[in-house]
Amino acid sequence: MPTLCRPAVAVPEFVITQEETLALARRLHHGHPQLPLALRLIGNTGVRERHLVRPIEETLQHPGFRARNDMYVTQARARIPAVVEEALGHAGLTARDIDLIVFVSCTGFTMPSPTAWLINTMGFRPETRQIPIAQLGCAAGGAAINRAHDFCTAYPGRNALVVACEFSSLCYQPTDLGVGNLLSNGLFGDAVAAAVVRGDGGTGVELRHNGSHLVPDTEDWIAYDVRETGFHFMLDKRVPGTMEQLAPVLASLARQHGQSASAMDFYIIHAGGPRILDDLCTHLKVPPASFRFSRATLTEYGNIASAVVLDALRRLFAEGGPGVGAHGMIAGFGPGITAEVALGTWTTAEAAARTPNRLRDGLADSEDLDGQGALV
Amino acid sequence: MPTLCRPAVAVPEFVITQEETLALARRLHHGHPQLPLALRLIGNTGVRERHLVRPIEETLQHPGFRARNDMYVTQARARIPAVVEEALGHAGLTARDIDLIVFVSCTGFTMPSPTAWLINTMGFRPETRQIPIAQLGCAAGGAAINRAHDFCTAYPGRNALVVACEFSSLCYQPTDLGVGNLLSNGLFGDAVAAAVVRGDGGTGVELRHNGSHLVPDTEDWIAYDVRETGFHFMLDKRVPGTMEQLAPVLASLARQHGQSASAMDFYIIHAGGPRILDDLCTHLKVPPASFRFSRATLTEYGNIASAVVLDALRRLFAEGGPGVGAHGMIAGFGPGITAEVALGTWTTAEAAARTPNRLRDGLADSEDLDGQGALV
Repeated sequence: MPTLCRPAVAVPEFVITQEETLALARRLHHGHPQLPLALRLIGNTGVRERHLVRPIEETLQHPGFRARNDMYVTQARARIPAVVEEALGHAGLTARDIDLIVFVSCTGFTMPSPTAWLINTMGFRPETRQIPIAQLGCAAGGAAINRAHDFCTAYPGRNALVVACEFSSLCYQPTDLGVGNLLSNGLFGDAVAAAVVRGDGGTGVELRHNGSHLVPDTEDWIAYDVRETGFHFMLDKRVPGTMEQLAPVLASLARQHGQSASAMDFYIIHAGGPRILDDLCTHLKVPPASFRFSRATLTEYGNIASAVVLDALRRLFAEGGPGVGAHGMIAGFGPGITAEVALGTWTTAEAAARTPNRLRDGLADSEDLDGQGALV
Repeated sequence: MPTLCRPAVAVPEFVITQEETLALARRLHHGHPQLPLALRLIGNTGVRERHLVRPIEETLQHPGFRARNDMYVTQARARIPAVVEEALGHAGLTARDIDLIVFVSCTGFTMPSPTAWLINTMGFRPETRQIPIAQLGCAAGGAAINRAHDFCTAYPGRNALVVACEFSSLCYQPTDLGVGNLLSNGLFGDAVAAAVVRGDGGTGVELRHNGSHLVPDTEDWIAYDVRETGFHFMLDKRVPGTMEQLAPVLASLARQHGQSASAMDFYIIHAGGPRILDDLCTHLKVPPASFRFSRATLTEYGNIASAVVLDALRRLFAEGGPGVGAHGMIAGFGPGITAEVALGTWTTAEAAARTPNRLRDGLADSEDLDGQGALV
């Protein structure tokens, strides 16, 4: 069965603390009627520091969309390879063992996708499939894992690489002055993350089921306005409230597979912001500590978009991982509003080796897609 | 087995003939040192007319990237639903029967992807999976078919919808004056196409195998330069020559599955330009008439990017389709340079109903992914 192996994550070297962010907001938005609200919201994020690809003085400049996008390419090429190498190493594989690359990134745009460059420069085989996704935002981390899972289900024994590259600081728009923008300016951070979904063997989350859910009629709530100056992030204040609608979706998916979303052994949840984590905790009736990996990502790196779930998972590994057979849930949330959810079970290479494949597969839950209404 | 059903295609109402294109080029580029070459290249495309979402006078204006992208959204919403409805009808399905939407488009950019709007407005279930791809250009038509195939292989009996939405005229850049740009201005056309990959039953191409291939070190040959003014298309003059490298790839994939790329019963090939079709004909040693569907698309609509393969397939259906059991190849080419290839067999709903599923599956080729080196 496909196993999501230990992720590799790198954050850039330029750090901005919350104190610095607040001081900056006070300076830049002196006299803004909603500055006190923005400062309170930023203070409430719990983001202690964030990492940026360029020094803050440079980040605050807007040199134009072209220069920004060129910088995105330069930074991506400089920072992705080491993370990919580390992720391959964690999975005990090399580039030549990979059959699919799912590359997700919403903070820069290139055609061809960076997958072409990766294949050309890092030793991947020319026949490696490419799924580049730029339009699922923060939900793309979960989507990447789920599409890799689907691929390994279609082609047993094949391996997929997931790469999330998010440089939100390159989408900073100095002229966007809504409260949602001011908050976002204090919330998002930059990071590159990667992980392998191994078709066979490996230690990590054995992926069992996945599901997607679009919250009806919320497509304008998280969106880009595409302009001459690049991508302008639009955040509706109703977004944090969507957990009330998504918690039952997660519960339903778990129930369909004989599990309880309130009693998972581990949770890897997109840390869009503190209220998303708080609300989901409340609605699922789980103790706050259950979301400690996501909270740590938010505190130390900020919202690193599609890379959050991979970083939270990295922290689960760093803690030593749960016991073999522990049940867990991975959930990414983003524009649409889309939720991408996975259910999995902790396994180790040793445990997998002790149990013959056929026996394991026979004992495992059905790999069938959730039925109609699985994610109603 | 997953079957690619009859596509629906719509081209817009504003038509520009080759004569008008040539006259326009003479007027706009009077005195351009390479005008004679550009006129010859445009004349050689064999494109008789193209269809545009706006009248030519308006198309020639550049109202800014933001206005262009807003127009892309308006046009997409106006033109996609009828095409999707028709494709669903051809497959004998409704929106509620669809489990995955693969949406491909490289001529506008939105986040969330238009999939969110489609799901909200056309009656698709909220749990419909979304794979939006903006970065595979013309190859995305083949990629969409192949990812839909993979999904239906992972989840037997499930259905996928493929949508290709290409408004190349909204990427016209009046200041780009290279010969490649002048040629492109006379080559690309607008279209919306859709088709269903049915998990079971249906008439069309039963998808058996698929493969991808990246031509090494050609990532700059077809590319977007992303600027304040939007996407600037960069076309290297070496692109048409890549068929010499890709023909052996197609041959190898066919051979791996006991077939000959030179002796297929039908071909659905991306009509990037006339030389791509001519060269591939020559290298595969097939008669020109074998590519008649792609040539008709090129002649009547121009290069409609990722929609070409769906339109060429529509023409195969319109001709009555080949006999049951006929072998065919679908190949999309685009930036990377990436080839996305599928091998399939013509089937009809009646033929499928006559043969019990288990028997058919037992007789069918293995669904395994092509081995390492399948697409060397």
